[in-house]
Parts: sequence; C-alpha cells; structure tokens
Amino acid sequence: MNKHLLLILLFFSTLGFSSQAQEAIFRAQNIISPEINADATVTFRLHAPNAKAVQVTGDFLPSVKIETPRGLMDGPGKADLVKDDNGVWEFKSQALSPELYSYSFIIDDFRTTDPSNPFLIRDVASVTNIFIVGKGQADLYRTQDILHGTVARRWYDSPGLSMDRRITIYTPPGYEKSTEKFPVLYLLHGAGGDEEAWIALGRTAQIMDNLIAEGKVKPMIVVMPNGNVIQDGAPGEGSEGFYKPAFMIPKTMDGTYEGAFSDIIKFVESNYQVKADKANRAIAGLSMGGYHSLHISRYYPNTFDYVGLFSAAIMAREDATGKVYSDFDASLKAQMDNGYKLYWIAIGKTDFLYDANKEFRTKLDGMGMKYTYVESEGGHIWRNWRVYLTQFAPQLFK
Amino acid sequence: MNKHLLLILLFFSTLGFSSQAQEAIFRAQNIISPEINADATVTFRLHAPNAKAVQVTGDFLPSVKIETPRGLMDGPGKADLVKDDNGVWEFKSQALSPELYSYSFIIDDFRTTDPSNPFLIRDVASVTNIFIVGKGQADLYRTQDILHGTVARRWYDSPGLSMDRRITIYTPPGYEKSTEKFPVLYLLHGAGGDEEAWIALGRTAQIMDNLIAEGKVKPMIVVMPNGNVIQDGAPGEGSEGFYKPAFMIPKTMDGTYEGAFSDIIKFVESNYQVKADKANRAIAGLSMGGYHSLHISRYYPNTFDYVGLFSAAIMAREDATGKVYSDFDASLKAQMDNGYKLYWIAIGKTDFLYDANKEFRTKLDGMGMKYTYVESEGGHIWRNWRVYLTQFAPQLFK
Repeated sequence: MNKHLLLILLFFSTLGFSSQAQEAIFRAQNIISPEINADATVTFRLHAPNAKAVQVTGDFLPSVKIETPRGLMDGPGKADLVKDDNGVWEFKSQALSPELYSYSFIIDDFRTTDPSNPFLIRDVASVTNIFIVGKGQADLYRTQDILHGTVARRWYDSPGLSMDRRITIYTPPGYEKSTEKFPVLYLLHGAGGDEEAWIALGRTAQIMDNLIAEGKVKPMIVVMPNGNVIQDGAPGEGSEGFYKPAFMIPKTMDGTYEGAFSDIIKFVESNYQVKADKANRAIAGLSMGGYHSLHISRYYPNTFDYVGLFSAAIMAREDATGKVYSDFDASLKAQMDNGYKLYWIAIGKTDFLYDANKEFRTKLDGMGMKYTYVESEGGHIWRNWRVYLTQFAPQLFK
Repeated sequence: MNKHLLLILLFFSTLGFSSQAQEAIFRAQNIISPEINADATVTFRLHAPNAKAVQVTGDFLPSVKIETPRGLMDGPGKADLVKDDNGVWEFKSQALSPELYSYSFIIDDFRTTDPSNPFLIRDVASVTNIFIVGKGQADLYRTQDILHGTVARRWYDSPGLSMDRRITIYTPPGYEKSTEKFPVLYLLHGAGGDEEAWIALGRTAQIMDNLIAEGKVKPMIVVMPNGNVIQDGAPGEGSEGFYKPAFMIPKTMDGTYEGAFSDIIKFVESNYQVKADKANRAIAGLSMGGYHSLHISRYYPNTFDYVGLFSAAIMAREDATGKVYSDFDASLKAQMDNGYKLYWIAIGKTDFLYDANKEFRTKLDGMGMKYTYVESEGGHIWRNWRVYLTQFAPQLFK
C-alpha cells in the first residue's frame, strides 16, 4: 500500500472521531450482521455497549399472539440478543426456510435499523432491513448471473389527472435490440405504496429476470404505475419533495384512478413495442391494487385477458359513487360476456380481507363468472405477494 | 369512514403492538422529523423515552476540530437534543443556507438513523438521512414540476471484463420521442461508490432536469457506470447479493477499468441516439472517478472534448504498472496536441487531495497544457461534487 492510499484510508476511517474512540469504531465497522450461516441459521449482531436490552423483531421469527383493540392478532415475534464483553450483542436464529426476510432492532424499546446492514426497504413510512436465505423460491428474489431486463423510471403525461406522473417500467432482456412486440402486465401496488413498491418490496425485476431465464415466463413488459392520484411521484421522488408517507391517501379508491387508467395504457402502447390487444394485456395488483385491478378490468370490460387479484381489498366504499362504480354489476357481466383467459384470485388464510374475498367469490359464483382461486398460508404480507407474482406470471400470454 | 376502511386502519396501526403500547406508538408515528421551518431553521425530533442522551450529527452543523492519528482534522459537529415530559427529544438548528444535508442520531453513543424520516442514502456502507433546505442552489436538487428525463438501470456486455455489468443512464426529457441525436457525459463515481452514487448522492437527475428546464444545460445523456471492475453491479444489485460494501475495492485503480472503458462507449453509442464524436463526448468524475477521468481521457487521447476532475484522487500508485499507465506523459501530451475544449479541475481548499492536485497543475503548467481551475471552500464532500456538476454541465457542448 503506498503513501497516498494509506492517507485516504486514514482520512476515511478517522474522520469525525476522537482517537480514544478508534477501537470502538473499528469494532462497529467490522461487525457482520446479518450473517447467513451455511445451515440456514442467521446471526444478528449489534455493537451497543451502553444498551440495557437489545431485541430483534421480524418476519423470520414465529409470529406471536398480540392483544389489540380488535382482540388477539398475529404479530411479529421478538428475540433477545445477548451481550459479550466487548459490547457486541448477538442472536442466532433457527434454520430458516428460503425467503426474503425483513427485520428491525429494538434497543431499550427504541425500534431502529441495523447499522451493519445497508440494505433497507421503505414500506409506507417504515424502513426495515432485509436479507435473503436459501435457494428454491428465494433464488427467484436474487440477482443471478443471467441476462437482465431494464428498469426505467419515466414520467408520462396523464391528461385525465392533469399532471405528468412518474412510472416504473421493466422491459425484458434484449428488449432494446429486439424488433419484436411484447405483451404487457400492469402491476398495481397497495395502499401506502407507489411506483417503487413492486420493484423494491416485490423484487419484480429479479422475479421476471429469473423466470424468463428459466423459460417459465414469456418475455413481457411490466408496468408499475402510481395509484395515488394526488401524487405525481412516490414520496421523495415527486414534486412534493420529502415528507412523511401516509398509509391512507385521499382519493385513492374513489374511481379517479380507474377512470384515468386509459392514460397509462395509451402511454405504454404509444411508447413501447407492445402487442396492443386484449390477448396481450394483463392487470394485477395487491390489496388496494387488487381493488383497482377488479374495477379497471370491468370498467374497460374488453381490455384484459388476464386479471390477478392478490389479497384484494374488495370493499363497498361510501366515496365510491362516481361513474366508474355506477354500473358495477352490469360491467362485471359485460366483462364476463366478453370473455377472458384467466381471472385469478389469491389470498392468505389469515388475511383480514379473507371474508370480503369469500363474499366476492360467492357473487362471482352466483353470476357464473369463472375464476381460479388460490388460498395460501399467512396474511396480508409481502411474502405472499411475491409468491403470487411468481405463480401468476407463468400463466400469462400462453 | 366506512367499516372496512376502519378495519384496515386498525389492522395496520395496531399490528404487533400490545394495547398499553398504543399511546407510545401513536406518539412515535406522529412525530415530524426533520421539520424544515419557514425561517430555514430545522427541528429534529426523536421519541426515545428510555434514552439517557440523544445527539444529532451531520453536515448542517459547523464542523469541529477532532483529534486523530493524523493530528487535528475537521469533523462533523454534534448537537444535544433535549427531552420533554413525553419522552420526545428535540433540537432546533440555526437558520441553514440552501443545501441538501445529511445527518444521523446518536442515542447513548449508538449512531443510527431517524425513524421518522424514511429518506436515506447509502454512502459506501453507511446509511444517513437527508433533507433539503431553502431555494437557490438547493432548488437544483429538488424534483420540480417541470419536464423530467428518464433514469434507466440497464446491463451492458463488457467483453473487456468478461461480464454483463449494470449501468445507470439518464436520458433527457423528450428523448424517447425525439429523432435527434444527443451528446453524452460519462460521469464517474469515487472509491466505495458504484452506479448508484451519482444518481442518489449526486442528485444527477434532478440537477440535469432543472438546468435543462432553465435552458442552462444542453439536453444530454448522462452515463453513470460502475468503476469497480470486480463487481457486476452495486452491492445488493449485482450477482454477489447483499454484502457489506467496502471503501477500498481491489483492482479499481490498476488500469483495468480504463482499459475496458471502450466497452461502455461502444455500448452507449450503439444503443442510444448519440452524436458519436469527440465534440459530443465529456467525461468527469469525483475523487477516484477524477483519477479515472484523467487516465481514460489521455489513454483514449482523441476522444473527449470535455474533461472534469472533481477533487481528483491524483496519485502515483505502485499497482499502476500496466499498459494504461506506461506512457502517461506521452499520452497526456498527445491529448494536449489533439486539442480539447475544456479541461476543468475543481477542488476544495481543505481537501486532503489539495496538494496532489496542486502538483498535477504544476505538471500541466510545465508542459503548457491548458485547464480551467476552480477552488471552492470545504473538503472531500458530496456537497462540493453536486456543486461542481452544476458548474461543469453548463459549459458542455456549447
């Protein structure tokens, strides 16, 4: 190592810290957390000599029953870390099944991120750390050494909402050099999400790259718009700047978005090499995005051959009074009569929307509208929505 | 609010917490931090009833002299938050000049992020919160209600490095619909950075959008590659998966990257509508990227009409023995003799690379190689590199 390099290293490793703090800094910088062990256990570590108690909480721990105003509910478990003589706290998990997990630390009742793990995902206003364990399903969430699609953040003009709006678009490997036309999946986020949700929490690019490489999914374009009509872009990415993201956002489920959805289709079909017909359009969404997919696919009743409702927030709403909702039954029947190839409904057994989905299926049964129904374990969680995408996408455009 | 909505709100607001913890949770969720006040002061808040001491540290505070193994150095200041009866800690800053700032909290000597602020940027392995104050220069870093370019994460084939590699590319507003050809700025990151550095820490998309909208910068494509030849993508984005990012990465300054840089130019010029000539190519970089820009621009001595060295890590290295470095003086002279429009050198007065840059300018003076020199306040910091980009880009392709 030459003199200049040493100077740089010293500069960056000492900046802002007194010399007596060097050892502590060195220890904190050298901590590996989380460490994914060969036996699929995971070790969490935290350097916090002054803390009285440190816990880790996350979806990798067995859920526990928690008392809430609604009665006992499932909540994420917690585990205690144990401190060693150097002030490093540690906890080793059970062997975990293949999955992308998220977690936080709780230090003396204060919930925070793991300073040793720079991989974080925002979900509404919460930021948590993530890690991946194992092969199998988890390999679908990894960036593998295969061909990759492109992920673009673009802005489209929405005359229906009188604004330019940000949108995330995945194009499959080789798209730019291809003269082919591709089918399109419109993939919609839930309440509190935005055009970043599916690409970040949903691992959409990794899932599509991997399933396309395996030959299980047809190369397609995936369009991830922002369903909050009062925003031009995700919090921090739009012209409103940085502000605390909210879970409930005005006007998200009053028909405005569904009514203006044709702007998005028009943008995609005039800017991308796409097969612009019903047989090559799919729409799917999670939670609120499932609600949107239900309504958009029947409001434009001869537009989509593939519809996916992932834990859909199916509900009668008092503010759902506009044109989009006025002919629910008639337009649903029109959609049925026009025909489609797949109407796919998936929900977890413990999802709080389970009954609402059951009610909706009864309605569909009553009118003779065909659908495929998948019931999974678990509740209203991203783990399920990633799995649903890996199950839904292979059925498209075949 | 109807019954279903209420159910959703309850579900999300109570999940995982016991009822007696409701008030604390509610308080924590409703904290606004940082709050940018009308008088340009900023209020920081943290709910941590069990903490004994809370500080905020960041580049918005006056720097302080800190004892290090190299002697007294400038380091970020710290300020104490004061606790109220509800366990909410608070600190209000002085009025701040327009800028994008970053900060962390220190809770009982444990450095962590602000849980009320989901806007975070990773720099090497550290994650800090950010906020923007004021107008003027700071407005260049905001997403404004103007036309926006597209930011794409793509993968290109690098035969010189025998791998597919991830790259970030900004195309200006209207690019996709245009039949025009555009000039290209290659913008290189520093040690420990990657293809995410300029777009995240550098606010490149916002800066370009704003300066193009003001008519101060010509519409151009900005190419942000990864200068770490052993990576195919940024930590967490490449096939190595999630791992703790390092500041010093092997083979970053041994000539391999410079030697294979033609792969990037070839990819850009065969995949984008670009003017593929010297008059329409610029290259600039910060720190290690300045070193790369220096060497790439002279190794391909008739390729770039515009060169920018931002706080360049100009240094003689023992591992710089290969073909790229073997004819430093001759190729630099060739570059000079071939001519160029701008050779722009910028550095802060307190930058630890100040002397190395001075030495290099003496060399250039000695051989009669012309350059423009800009000396700013401050040191080796992102604040300067964003400013340098806003100063350099308007001079290009005129």
